[in-house]
Amino acid sequence: MIGVDWGTTSLRAYRLAPGGAVREKREAERGILAVPPGGFPAALRQAVGDWIAAGEDRILLCGMVGSRQGWVEAPYLACPAGAADLAAATVPVPFADATARVRLVPGLAARDAAGVPEVMRGEETKVVGLLAAIGEDAPEATLCLPGTHCKWVRVRAGRVAGFATAMTGEVFAALSSHTILARTLDAEAPPHRGAFDRGLARARQKGGLLHHLFGVRALALTGELPPGEGRSYLSGLLIGHEVAAALEAGVAPPVHLAGAEPLVALYARALDAFGIPHRSHDPDAAARGLALIGERLGETAW
Amino acid sequence: MIGVDWGTTSLRAYRLAPGGAVREKREAERGILAVPPGGFPAALRQAVGDWIAAGEDRILLCGMVGSRQGWVEAPYLACPAGAADLAAATVPVPFADATARVRLVPGLAARDAAGVPEVMRGEETKVVGLLAAIGEDAPEATLCLPGTHCKWVRVRAGRVAGFATAMTGEVFAALSSHTILARTLDAEAPPHRGAFDRGLARARQKGGLLHHLFGVRALALTGELPPGEGRSYLSGLLIGHEVAAALEAGVAPPVHLAGAEPLVALYARALDAFGIPHRSHDPDAAARGLALIGERLGETAW
Repeated sequence: MIGVDWGTTSLRAYRLAPGGAVREKREAERGILAVPPGGFPAALRQAVGDWIAAGEDRILLCGMVGSRQGWVEAPYLACPAGAADLAAATVPVPFADATARVRLVPGLAARDAAGVPEVMRGEETKVVGLLAAIGEDAPEATLCLPGTHCKWVRVRAGRVAGFATAMTGEVFAALSSHTILARTLDAEAPPHRGAFDRGLARARQKGGLLHHLFGVRALALTGELPPGEGRSYLSGLLIGHEVAAALEAGVAPPVHLAGAEPLVALYARALDAFGIPHRSHDPDAAARGLALIGERLGETAW
Repeated sequence: MIGVDWGTTSLRAYRLAPGGAVREKREAERGILAVPPGGFPAALRQAVGDWIAAGEDRILLCGMVGSRQGWVEAPYLACPAGAADLAAATVPVPFADATARVRLVPGLAARDAAGVPEVMRGEETKVVGLLAAIGEDAPEATLCLPGTHCKWVRVRAGRVAGFATAMTGEVFAALSSHTILARTLDAEAPPHRGAFDRGLARARQKGGLLHHLFGVRALALTGELPPGEGRSYLSGLLIGHEVAAALEAGVAPPVHLAGAEPLVALYARALDAFGIPHRSHDPDAAARGLALIGERLGETAW
């Protein structure tokens, strides 16, 4: 089977052995934003055509490729939902190739206590892969998937019960490039652990994020925050506020982290600062999730 | 006397009668960022040269013109500070004009309980003007000056005891133009009161700002927030978070608001939602503040 995690800015393809082991892996800067209208079949052939020619006849996609801007829009599946629910809700994708069939994993939707909606696309598949690593029978677990939009996922009895998204990564990018803070940060500076910790500590003080942000500027003006430390301080401030709010909403420790380094290491450091146990997992959880959902599809559903 | 409130993006000049009444007022898009190096004397002459020719021989400046990027850098004066302290700390500005002398009001600096610095330039002069309107003898007062960087000022016995800045206006601009939220907002839509109130209400729920921001996107995706209401919702969300944090830090009601409409009206609405009494004041408080500081300078200091 072929699994493809097809997001906004990149495409990750996995050639999977029966049982889910990754035989081969590829990554391309060919996210859905880089695919012209009608170009998805060609983009898929370009990415994995040789694997199809070699006999792979099932392709399972997940991620933003199933959004309104993607290939086929797969309606969000409502929580609670687990691997079996996701498999049953996969959507067939028209692919003019006699030898391979393509299906798409839907995203998940949830509502918080106040009724405000939440959505994810792609992360649901990573969660399925992570649950296999954690032990699917865990009565309760909290998963944290850092990224542009970080997902905090509550799992109960092997199914996603609900989740909350924090726009931290994207807010960091917007503030560090498009506000007066840009003048106080050296964009090329390497990460600075001490400055990150200072930002984390600041996030735990009163005043609110919008006030703490101005402190980045004021500390720079008074010479108390060197330009080379500004980015790490801002990063610590934002991640600190995110983690504080997530803890206030409630987590079931340990928090299971999965995502790209070095971001996961920063979240681990933030959880340490709050005294919350955590475990880090394989960032390629999507491959395992695609394999598991594919297995659940069995022979006939394709 | 001539008073000039010279900020980053604009210049406001006032021709003041003895006693402080505004005889004439001018505004130009000639903020310090639009002045070339060495160009401040010429820019001042362009703005008020005719008033000088008519006999005005004292010019008092306030605002970012006293910053490192301005004409002459005036060191920040430490809080607590009032009108007399500001007058005593004004800085002479070299102006090659035999008939007029120029001085500059310094900004203020403070530290919060955690020792993090705060700075303002220009608002200290508005505060002096506002205190005259409020009654300088008030044992305690809270002033809120909305803008790109909103200042919450604590006054005790006629002097600024401390203050906190929230980057709300600038964060709004960065998020609404440079994140995925831009796709869900109609930038041309008129203000929508109901959406602003929804954002305010959301700010009072758990989850934190970074999570609430993603809700703007999710509500739009599910059709629960029309594009025409997105900007007002985001505005309510941010101002709501700012006001909630300010109240948590402590205010002495009523909160005295001063600044440009329609922003002041939005803060008034937010304070209403939190049940905090407030009063709105003349947005031209800087003119009165310049007059009062000028009076304190007396005859000899010039």
